[in-house]
Order: sequence, then structure tokens, then C-alpha cells
Amino acid sequence: MSSEFSLIQQYFSRPTPDVVLGVGDDCALLQSSPNMHLAVSTDSLVAGVHFFHDADPALLGWKSLAVNLSDLAAMGATPRWCTLAISLPEVDESWLAAYADGLYHCADAHQIRLVGGDTTRGPLNLSLTVMGEVPINQALRRDGAQVGDAIWVSGDLGDAAFALAAIQGQLQLSEVDMASLAQRLHAPVPRVSLGLALRQIAHSAIDISDGLLADLGHILSHSRVSAVLHYAALPTSEIVADLAAHPAYDRCVLAGGDDYELCFTAPVAHSDAISAMAEQLDVRLTCIGEIVADGGMQLMDADGQPMQMVQMGYDHFVS
Amino acid sequence: MSSEFSLIQQYFSRPTPDVVLGVGDDCALLQSSPNMHLAVSTDSLVAGVHFFHDADPALLGWKSLAVNLSDLAAMGATPRWCTLAISLPEVDESWLAAYADGLYHCADAHQIRLVGGDTTRGPLNLSLTVMGEVPINQALRRDGAQVGDAIWVSGDLGDAAFALAAIQGQLQLSEVDMASLAQRLHAPVPRVSLGLALRQIAHSAIDISDGLLADLGHILSHSRVSAVLHYAALPTSEIVADLAAHPAYDRCVLAGGDDYELCFTAPVAHSDAISAMAEQLDVRLTCIGEIVADGGMQLMDADGQPMQMVQMGYDHFVS
Repeated sequence: MSSEFSLIQQYFSRPTPDVVLGVGDDCALLQSSPNMHLAVSTDSLVAGVHFFHDADPALLGWKSLAVNLSDLAAMGATPRWCTLAISLPEVDESWLAAYADGLYHCADAHQIRLVGGDTTRGPLNLSLTVMGEVPINQALRRDGAQVGDAIWVSGDLGDAAFALAAIQGQLQLSEVDMASLAQRLHAPVPRVSLGLALRQIAHSAIDISDGLLADLGHILSHSRVSAVLHYAALPTSEIVADLAAHPAYDRCVLAGGDDYELCFTAPVAHSDAISAMAEQLDVRLTCIGEIVADGGMQLMDADGQPMQMVQMGYDHFVS
Repeated sequence: MSSEFSLIQQYFSRPTPDVVLGVGDDCALLQSSPNMHLAVSTDSLVAGVHFFHDADPALLGWKSLAVNLSDLAAMGATPRWCTLAISLPEVDESWLAAYADGLYHCADAHQIRLVGGDTTRGPLNLSLTVMGEVPINQALRRDGAQVGDAIWVSGDLGDAAFALAAIQGQLQLSEVDMASLAQRLHAPVPRVSLGLALRQIAHSAIDISDGLLADLGHILSHSRVSAVLHYAALPTSEIVADLAAHPAYDRCVLAGGDDYELCFTAPVAHSDAISAMAEQLDVRLTCIGEIVADGGMQLMDADGQPMQMVQMGYDHFVS
């Protein structure tokens, strides 16, 4: 590694006073907590695939950590530590400073410590690994959904996908609406507090990164159950609700990526507790259906009639 | 992520029976051990930077994990778990199968479990994060070297750098010699057992990834000490010893990358124990100098006269 690239590490060496040993040795040294499982996830963002080459580095810094925190949230894990492997085509100090600011902004907001990193020359690639902790036997897994569970989602669906569609010229939005949806695409807020609150409440959970149908499909296949969803119940922002007649609506709401909301299932008996939690955490929580034994995934219209889902670009969840 | 790319994950989903929850959920769930610190490191290999685009994928699989295991070894940590973030320009199943075989070969040899991964389309990039465990207060850190310590290195220096020089046409080697050095470049063996054995013996350790002078320089700067090295003591293979007159010799041996040997310091009183360890582990261990209080890094020739190091391409360790 050139010394030029070694210098980059200085951007990612802010103090970590509560860590045994942070950036700067062969490994970080971390003190895990008794009676907890370590929850670990890794996710990459690649230029030209997940973001445009000229993307705002500060937003990228936020998002590259946020999408990983979303996995911890979906597991009900408390964020603890993360590492960053970053490849850059060249050393651009203003880009790096902005990226680091965005990353640390997200890290500070969610109390996760960057404890290690690797910086190399190469096509722009941001790979993060996050570590969190969850009490033994309280993790929110994909395989815990039970027949009779209510299916919930947090927040609104489709904002990020509509933002991307607008950027790609598939629709025109007012400046204000565009700014609102773009914020959701570029700076998603991981549902960390919600994940923690769901630990003793939900039977299963997943974060919605590939679209509701795909991700709920993972819960169904891992739990060997089926689902009935109510189309009219799907939560959307006012902006997206106004786009209900747009040809991309179903795809964006049901199969759009980058929502980073949580989808979870819980016993119906907990519904009041969940509604109270929504108040307390100031996050919209909407019951969109229920877990059933058979039938794969069925989407019902307002009259209770099954809808076709073939055209929604989703082929994973076939039961 | 396209379903095509989701399928890739199947290459990295071999069973992990001793893990709470492996690949397939939002996070892996891991049970850490009491009274141990978690040691975590991350390292990337990038096509066109760390390896050629047409590199043997099975060797890449081995090496991409081995270079990370080398960091655990340098910390004295027992390997436990790893995650993989892989970007590929296209899905090439035979490449993937060979890469996975190489990776698992190295993982099985060192009893580390692949517990999570992310696969994306993009320029070829292999980012791994490894996790290990080390008893509290027994980690081999960079900052523990003490005046009077002997400085040791494992194995031979310069093999990998000479292999690369030969590949780049800077010298001609016989087929047999080339194969021997290329093995060291493409399939380094992380010194995991040595790192564990050094836990109660060494004051400091680092793995030699950027060349002896650079990496020993990190120990010196972190420990605020200096070093005297004996040029004649530097261990090399017979092949490299025969190249002592080659203009690249000093650079390859002193500042060549990719050795993945350990450099460590230990009290002189432990020298016999270290020699016995070399026998027991069947690894060459050579005392190459000693830690002193002042003077930066000095390299002595066979007559005890200081040598010039400016031309060795190394500028980090200036005291």
C-alpha cells in the first residue's frame, strides 16, 4: 500500500474511548457483553450499481453505514462496532473528508464505533461490516413467523423507488416532492430503536432492502408459512399515494428497493402494544396482513379478491 | 439485487454446525467466549491492484482469507468467524466454484467459519472481515515492544516480492524456483499457530504485509522505541539467497510486500523458548536485531557498520 493510501486511514481514526483497541493495530480488540449473542452483517455499496459516480460523498457516508445498521435493526441487535473496507480510484481529500463526516454522523447517531478499516486503490467500493449484540434467544430471526401472526411494516413503502424512477426520468415531481423522496433514497434512517423495542414482541423480522414482497418472501420461506396481504393497507407517503395511478406504483411500493423499513410478524395479542410503540417511537407501524398456513403469498384487493402479482417483477417467493 | 446475484450466495453457504446462526438471515448470530476479547480485522483484495484479472480463482480464495488470518495471527487471536463481501462483474459459475473452494480450503485449515456475505455486481473486489478471540490482556499489540527485546521474524523474507518481480520481467528464474516463489506469493500460509504460541512470550507483534522495514516501523512508532537490525541475519530462502547480488534484493527482502510472516519482539530471556517453539511448530524463527531506546531504525552490516536505507523505498519509520 502506498503511503498516500495509508494516510487515508487518518480520516477513519476518530477516537473510540469505550473500545479496548480501535484503529491502528493488526486487529481491533473488543469487549463483548455476557449473555449476549454477537450479531454480524456485511453489505457493500458499489459505484455505478448502488449509486452514481458523482453521488454526494456525505450522503454516501451516511447511507453506507445506514444500510448495514438496518440489518442489525432487523435482528433486534444493539449496534456496537463496525469496520470499513474502502476502495477508491484516487485520493481525493475533499471527497474523503465529506464521506468520513457522513459516516461518523450516522455512527454517532446510532452509537456504533468504527474500529477498523482497510483503504485500497481501486474502483469505488464501500464494504462495511457491522457488529451488534442481542440477548441470547431474543434475536428477531426470519424463521420465527407463526400462523396467525399479524404482518407489520414500519414507515412508508415506495418512496426510495419513486425517487430513483424520477431520477431516471420515468416521472416528473415537484422540487419539494423530489427533495422529500430523494432524502429517503439517499439518507435512509435505520429502524434501530424499533428493532430493539420489538425484541420481546415480534416473532420474526427482516429489513426491506429489496422490496416488500421479496423480503417478506424470505420470512415465509424460512418460516415455512404463507401470507395474505391487503393492498389497501400498504402504507405510503402522501406523495406516493398521489401517484397511485402511475404505472410504476405497484412495482415501487411492493417490489421497490432501498426502503430500509422493517417488516415483522407478531401475535395479534400484541397489536395494542405495537400501536403504543408506534406512538412512543414516533414511527408509523401498519398491519398489512396475516400469516397463514398455505397458499404462498396472496395479495387481496379492497373487495377481498386475490390480485395478480406476476407483473411486479418478483419471482422469489413462489411457495 | 438480481436473483442471479442472490444465487451466488449459495456458493458461500456451507454448513456451520458450531455457529448459532450462519448465512441466510439479516445477521449471523455468534456466541463469543467469556474472558476473551474479540479481535476484528478487515482487508480487501482488488483486481488490477492486488492481483491480475486472470488470477487463479482457487488461489485467490485461499489468499483473500489468508491475508486476513495473518492479522489475527499477529494479534495472537484464535480464528473464529469471517464474512465476505464480493463484487463480481458478472456471474461466472466456474470461477465462483473455484474461488469458494479455495476460500473454504483455507477456512477449514484454520478452523474459521464463514458466517455471512454480500454479493454484488461490480468490479472484482474481495473484502473480508475476520473475527477471532484472544484472552483478555494477552493480545500481541504493536505498542508493547520494550528496550532490550530481541526482534524476531518467522520464515523467509522476500520470496513473494521476488516472485512478483519475476512475473513483471525484472529477472529470470528457473521453472522450479519460480513455482516455489509463486506459491509463497499466491498461497501464503498465515502464521496462526505461531501467533497463539507467542501469546505469553512476545511483547509485541505485527504481520509483514508491507515489508519488514515498514511493518517493524509500526511497532517502533507505536512502542516509542528504536531498533538495530543485522543485515546478515535476515532470513531468506536458498533461492533468494542466491539472488543477493540482484539490484532488487534489498528492496524485496527489506521492503517487499506479501510475506505474511510475523515480526515480533520478546525478552532475551525467552530466546531458548522461542527456539524450542520453532522446532515444535516446524517454522523458522530468526533473531534479526534488538530494540533500543534511540536512533530510529539502524541496519548494521556484517562489520557492525550502519548501512544506508534511503534507497529501499521506505519512508515511514523515521524517528
